[in-house]
Amino acid sequence: MRPPTIRDVADRAGVSKSLVSLVLRGTGQVRPEKREAVLRAVRELGYRPNAAARSLSEQRSRTVGVLLNDLRNPWFVDLLDGLNSLLHAGGLHMLLADARLSRRTGGRLTGPFLDLGVDGLVVVGTLPDPTVLGAVAERLPVVVAGAREPAPAGVDLVAGDDEAGARLATEHLIRLGHRRIAHIAGHGAVGELRRRSFEATMRAHGLADRALVEPGDMTEEGGYRSAVRLLGRPDRPTAVFAVNDIASVGVLSAAGELGLRVPGDLSVTGYDNTSIARLRHVWLTTVDTAPHEVGHRAARFLLDRFERPGGAGRVHLATPTLKIRGTTAPPREPGG
Amino acid sequence: MRPPTIRDVADRAGVSKSLVSLVLRGTGQVRPEKREAVLRAVRELGYRPNAAARSLSEQRSRTVGVLLNDLRNPWFVDLLDGLNSLLHAGGLHMLLADARLSRRTGGRLTGPFLDLGVDGLVVVGTLPDPTVLGAVAERLPVVVAGAREPAPAGVDLVAGDDEAGARLATEHLIRLGHRRIAHIAGHGAVGELRRRSFEATMRAHGLADRALVEPGDMTEEGGYRSAVRLLGRPDRPTAVFAVNDIASVGVLSAAGELGLRVPGDLSVTGYDNTSIARLRHVWLTTVDTAPHEVGHRAARFLLDRFERPGGAGRVHLATPTLKIRGTTAPPREPGG
Repeated sequence: MRPPTIRDVADRAGVSKSLVSLVLRGTGQVRPEKREAVLRAVRELGYRPNAAARSLSEQRSRTVGVLLNDLRNPWFVDLLDGLNSLLHAGGLHMLLADARLSRRTGGRLTGPFLDLGVDGLVVVGTLPDPTVLGAVAERLPVVVAGAREPAPAGVDLVAGDDEAGARLATEHLIRLGHRRIAHIAGHGAVGELRRRSFEATMRAHGLADRALVEPGDMTEEGGYRSAVRLLGRPDRPTAVFAVNDIASVGVLSAAGELGLRVPGDLSVTGYDNTSIARLRHVWLTTVDTAPHEVGHRAARFLLDRFERPGGAGRVHLATPTLKIRGTTAPPREPGG
Repeated sequence: MRPPTIRDVADRAGVSKSLVSLVLRGTGQVRPEKREAVLRAVRELGYRPNAAARSLSEQRSRTVGVLLNDLRNPWFVDLLDGLNSLLHAGGLHMLLADARLSRRTGGRLTGPFLDLGVDGLVVVGTLPDPTVLGAVAERLPVVVAGAREPAPAGVDLVAGDDEAGARLATEHLIRLGHRRIAHIAGHGAVGELRRRSFEATMRAHGLADRALVEPGDMTEEGGYRSAVRLLGRPDRPTAVFAVNDIASVGVLSAAGELGLRVPGDLSVTGYDNTSIARLRHVWLTTVDTAPHEVGHRAARFLLDRFERPGGAGRVHLATPTLKIRGTTAPPREPGG
C-alpha cells in the first residue's frame, strides 16, 4: 500500500491541492469549514508530508517546542494533554525540553528548539528570566501557559484564574464554619495573586482580623515548617489554605506529628489538583485549575499566530473549580 | 564580542581544527585525552557551531531524542539528570517526547524525532511495542534505559538490577524478624523479575511456605485492593513488599482504613525511591535504582555508538541500594 499523497487528501476533502497546502502551512485565508475538512482528511488518511522536503520548501518543521520549567513537579501533565490534542489535529508534533536541566548545564533555554527550526514555542510555567522570550517572539510565535508573570510584547498568556481559585478555597472553609483561617503563601506572581485573593475574601466576610498569612516556599518541607509555626500558636487556626498541593502535604505531616486529626481538628485545602492530591492516602480538598482547557487554549493561540503572525499578546484565564475531598470539614467549635 | 569559532576551540585545546571537527562529529579515532581537551575548550568558550550549517555539511543535528513512556509517572527524572549531564558535556542537546500522548493521538512514536533528524534515540521505560525500535536502530543509534524487556538487535539496554533490588527489600524484612511476608506483584519484565527474586529469596531463607504473592497493576488503587485482600486473611502477613512505590502508597491507605499501624502492625517496602517515597507524609522504605547512574551509562553507550556505529547491543545493570525509612520495623510477635 502506497502512503497517501497530498492529492488523496485534496480528493477526500473535496478541495484543491493548493488549498491543502495552504492549510498545512497554516498560512493564507482559509474558511474554517474548509480547514476542518482538510485536517479531517489528513487524520483519516494518516497523511504525513515528507518533513525534510516540506521543511526545505516551506521553511516549516511542523514541530512545536514545549519548554517545561521543571519536569520534577508533574503539575503540567494535564496541560500537555490539552495542548497535544489540538496541535496534533493541526498536524503538529510536540517536542519537550526541561528548563531546569538546561539551566543546570548552562545551556541556552531555547537554543535546541531554535537550532532545529521549530515553528513555535510554548513555555509551560514560570521561567527564571521571562525576558528571554521577547527576543524569541520576534522570530516565531510564543505562548506562555500556566504562569502569571506579565508576558513580553507579542506573547500570548493562558493560565488559571488564581484569584477566583483562591476565593473558592477560602469561601469553602468559611462556609464550613471556620473563622481562624491561615494561608501558607508562595512566591512569584501566582503566590502573590493567591495570597491577595485570600486576604480580600477574608475581608469581604468580615474576617480580616482572623486571617493569618505565613510565608512558604511551595515545597512539602516549607509547608511542614509553616504549619508547625501556625499550629504552635495559642490561637491556632482551625483551617489552613496552602498555596499548592505539595505544601498542603507538608501541613498534613505537621498535623499528624502534633496529634491533630484532619479534618476533625484541622481542615486543609491545597491548590492545583495534582496527582498527589488524588492519592487515596492524601485525598486532599484542592482547586482544579482546568489544565486541559489551559493547554487547549494555548494551542489555539499558537495556531492563530501561525495564520496571522504578529499582533499584540492576548491573555486568557481559565475558570477553576473546587474539588472537595477528605481534608475539609466543619470545625469542632463552630465560629471558633 | 564575536562568538567563538572552531579556530578558537582548536587554539585553546592545542589541537588542529580538523581534530575539533572530528570530535564534534563524534567520528574517527580520537585519543580520549584529546577529546576531553576539545570538549573542555568547547564548554569554556561556550562555542556553538551553527546548527543549520553544520547539519547540512555533517548531517548531524547534535540533538538526541528522548522518548518517555509516560510523563505522568515521574520516576525517570533522576535518570534524565544523569543522561543530560554526559550528553551536554558532549555538546548534545536533549529533546523529549511522551509516548503516551503520541499513542493517544495515533502518531508514530519516533516520527517527530526522525523527521527532525536527531542523531540518536534514548527510550526511557517500556514501550507498548518495542519491536518498532529495531527498524529505528537500523537508521541511528538507539539505547533503552529503565526497561527490562529484551532489546532488539543492535540496541543497548541500561537498567537497574531488579533481582538484586527485590532481594535487598525481602532480606531487609526477613532480617527484621518478619516471616509471613507478602509481595504485591506487577506486570511486564520488571514485575516478573522482582516477583521471582522475592520468591527465590524467601526460598533461600526456608520461608517458601510463608511467602504470599498477590497480583497487582502497579497503581495506587491496585496496591490498595491487593492489600485489602491480603490484610483480610486469617494468616495476614506482617510485612508487604510492593512492586513499586505507588502501589505501596495504596498499601498504606488500606492499612490505615483497617486500623493497622505502620510500621507497628505492618511493615511496608516499595521500589524505585520516587519523590512520593521521600514525602515526609509517606517516608517509605524503598529500593533506590541508581537512576542517575542508569542515565549516565545510557548516555555513555549512545556516545560510544556515535564513535563506532553498529555492533551488538550491550546490557548494563546498575546496582540498587536500600533506603530504610519509616515504614519498616520488627514485627510485634517475632517469628510470627
